[in-house]
Amino acid sequence: MGDICDEQSRVLTMKTINPRAVEMEYAVRGPIVTRSVSLMKELEAGAQKPFSKVLQANIGDCHATGQNPITFIRQVVAACVCPDMMDSCNFPDDVKNKARRILQGCKGKSVGSYSASPGVEVIRQDIANYITKRDGQKASSDDIILCTGASDGIKTILNLVMTGKDGCEKAGIMIPVPQYPLYTATLTEYNAHPIPYYLNEENMWSLDVSELERAFKDAKGKCVPRAICVINPGNPTGQVLTRKNIEDIIRFANEHKLMILADEVYQHNIWAKGSAFFSFKKVMTEMENGKYSKTELASFMSCSKGYMGECGFRGGYAEVVNLLPDVKAILLKSISAKLCPPILGQVVMDTIVNPPQPGEPSHELFEKEKSEVLSLLKRKAEIVTQLFNSIEGIKCNEVMGAMYAFPRIFLPPKAVKAAEAQKQSPDFFYCMDLLETTGICTVPGSGFGEKPGTYHFRITILPKLEEMQAVLEKFKEFHLNFLKKYQ
Amino acid sequence: MGDICDEQSRVLTMKTINPRAVEMEYAVRGPIVTRSVSLMKELEAGAQKPFSKVLQANIGDCHATGQNPITFIRQVVAACVCPDMMDSCNFPDDVKNKARRILQGCKGKSVGSYSASPGVEVIRQDIANYITKRDGQKASSDDIILCTGASDGIKTILNLVMTGKDGCEKAGIMIPVPQYPLYTATLTEYNAHPIPYYLNEENMWSLDVSELERAFKDAKGKCVPRAICVINPGNPTGQVLTRKNIEDIIRFANEHKLMILADEVYQHNIWAKGSAFFSFKKVMTEMENGKYSKTELASFMSCSKGYMGECGFRGGYAEVVNLLPDVKAILLKSISAKLCPPILGQVVMDTIVNPPQPGEPSHELFEKEKSEVLSLLKRKAEIVTQLFNSIEGIKCNEVMGAMYAFPRIFLPPKAVKAAEAQKQSPDFFYCMDLLETTGICTVPGSGFGEKPGTYHFRITILPKLEEMQAVLEKFKEFHLNFLKKYQ
Repeated sequence: MGDICDEQSRVLTMKTINPRAVEMEYAVRGPIVTRSVSLMKELEAGAQKPFSKVLQANIGDCHATGQNPITFIRQVVAACVCPDMMDSCNFPDDVKNKARRILQGCKGKSVGSYSASPGVEVIRQDIANYITKRDGQKASSDDIILCTGASDGIKTILNLVMTGKDGCEKAGIMIPVPQYPLYTATLTEYNAHPIPYYLNEENMWSLDVSELERAFKDAKGKCVPRAICVINPGNPTGQVLTRKNIEDIIRFANEHKLMILADEVYQHNIWAKGSAFFSFKKVMTEMENGKYSKTELASFMSCSKGYMGECGFRGGYAEVVNLLPDVKAILLKSISAKLCPPILGQVVMDTIVNPPQPGEPSHELFEKEKSEVLSLLKRKAEIVTQLFNSIEGIKCNEVMGAMYAFPRIFLPPKAVKAAEAQKQSPDFFYCMDLLETTGICTVPGSGFGEKPGTYHFRITILPKLEEMQAVLEKFKEFHLNFLKKYQ
Repeated sequence: MGDICDEQSRVLTMKTINPRAVEMEYAVRGPIVTRSVSLMKELEAGAQKPFSKVLQANIGDCHATGQNPITFIRQVVAACVCPDMMDSCNFPDDVKNKARRILQGCKGKSVGSYSASPGVEVIRQDIANYITKRDGQKASSDDIILCTGASDGIKTILNLVMTGKDGCEKAGIMIPVPQYPLYTATLTEYNAHPIPYYLNEENMWSLDVSELERAFKDAKGKCVPRAICVINPGNPTGQVLTRKNIEDIIRFANEHKLMILADEVYQHNIWAKGSAFFSFKKVMTEMENGKYSKTELASFMSCSKGYMGECGFRGGYAEVVNLLPDVKAILLKSISAKLCPPILGQVVMDTIVNPPQPGEPSHELFEKEKSEVLSLLKRKAEIVTQLFNSIEGIKCNEVMGAMYAFPRIFLPPKAVKAAEAQKQSPDFFYCMDLLETTGICTVPGSGFGEKPGTYHFRITILPKLEEMQAVLEKFKEFHLNFLKKYQ
């Protein structure tokens, strides 16, 4: 709307601004979410809507939807922030001990000082111990890099595998479709070439190696393939990869000389019977007598998901193994200008990898709070799957893990046409209508990528159980009306 | 050291890794700092050295060198982390009120939820109020973007002004020399063209517009000039710009259609008599009846410096004014994939922009702690300047502001030759010798850029006063011996 005269005097216009920033999309916080925020403000101001409350089911933001923090985590953080309070505030001994141990590892014994760029050394050690215990395979603190949420770690590693070149010399990065949009957003920002591979919706969103081969072949001549990203448990798809599937991916990556980026932030969120989480690190170390144990791998973890859901602390880590020493040195240099990740995010990460042990004063409460969150999420995962599958025109794979359902919606041709007339993707059109009619905020499947001609949306399983049930009923009503409207 | 066979099997080698990551340098955490960390470990392990302690004077890390946190800041953070504790821990009422107000602005009333990407709304409002009060000019919360330390904000804005092109179509960014190396590191990472302009050491590191003109002219045909970065108070140079000087820079930027990036993180750290901090925002709004009030400007602030020195919280903000509405939308989109800055860094930022007021229970202690830190820093700034100027072969401009001295060292030709024989810059050679001989860790001037043939180092004024005096004596001895050795 700026007048021309105004445009001409500006440094930054839509013509001069970084075109990659214009192109970049991140649907989890896209226009539907923006509209949901406006709707909230309208409701607050007394506007009449067909609903009394906006339900933000667009983002895996556990505490925003009412999940309570784990007492032990918060007490350790508070004790680190105000060490003088430890005694006067009656913190349990294990809280105090942990806080003292971490502070001992901070410069000047203050969480206000910078840590080394890869993080506080004792915390890196605790993470290595956690991985060692989880995998039954030795991990080293030298391979641990703490980061500002897993997103920051993923961007750091992707930056490393870039070629710095253009056209067919761009780095090619294999990414799942559908996929958490941080990947496509970052590849756009970095001017890299995405090599999309489709997850198999017909087979529980599994990852077929034949599809990886197809995608790799298709990318020939278009880029220099460098890495494959795998999200397990899946986001937005909720699948949990089998050990056999992971082995196949590792073989594929080695055959084609690809670094593996394993996004394993939902490792605590496994719901399906018979499913289990296997880390890429464990599998590659153990398969075929260690033949693949030298694979270049980065695995990412976060304090934002699991049972803790401490998104606001921006804590996370990457375990990066099998880099050549001089390459490792470049990695460490590349993170140095960021100074360090937030210390309290590191502290939260520590409480998760090194929780209270049996016999310690906080153990019982910690386990109780943890299992309450996880069992509730498990129930919601089941309910959501069941309910969506009970609705005409919707098909939803089992939510095996993570925090989302990603149902497929079969839209009538008239709805597709109506969307196209508005230059919207049909699932965007659907999700916007859903929001305006019911107040339920979701993310259209197009924001994650999907097979052409298929439509989906992502909805979190985080709202409170009682709310969830009411919401799903409301959703059902909307959906059937939508079908009727465009039949 | 990797064997060839090993190299051949790797995805990432020094030949295939992102060349910009190889090229990027960040001296504040460079090889001298790495060596200082090794020396600390050697000392701990009982090694005999000519010194008993390593003094890290390389980085503006206040708490690491013994500065105590401000009580009010830490109490507010702790209360936000454990709201249940507020009453049992006897927090003052203003602490409780502030924590409650902030939590009210957090989703689910938890600092564990994500905020909007530009930050918690009430905190953005408090920042706008702070700026309004500071400048006597209205600021708007819509223009405030919280970030993960000022560095993150600077990178966000630099990303926006990139052209996404190569060769002479690269974005050209004017940067001071000497300069905090985040700028050169980021320009390398982003493939931008740095346009260095020299600060005038002979005139107290002032910024001459004729030099800006020279630099701009020199860059002709090499890039598309887009922005000018100014650090005020200066890092590493410690100069404080006069209002007149700022006016000249604003005129220059407008004439050449450059966005201004004003790094104002040391705005609380003014030491020189007669000096005062003027924000670019205030000056451009007030000069020539508002003629320049539409200048595109981003100003950066941090919770890591000033009197608080809370580096580990990674809090900071940018005030970005006069962007076209669609450009602003792109800016907001560009930060969305990072989700949000750490909430507690935002909380710390809030305590600084909205501190306890007269009559509130925390006011007296807050003011006392704040003025103690600032008056001590002021004394150290004076002592450092005096002492360096008392040494033969050293010349040090007055530390007018910020937290560093940047003395010039006049090195004997033999020393310069000895450095060159080791393929080191002469000041790197000098600083490494200083570290090995005395345990004092500084950063060579070459890491910040300097006029060819001149040599400097940066040393912080943060160590404790008593330690500082001993250190400077030790330094003097080293320096005179160094001169003798290479005379």
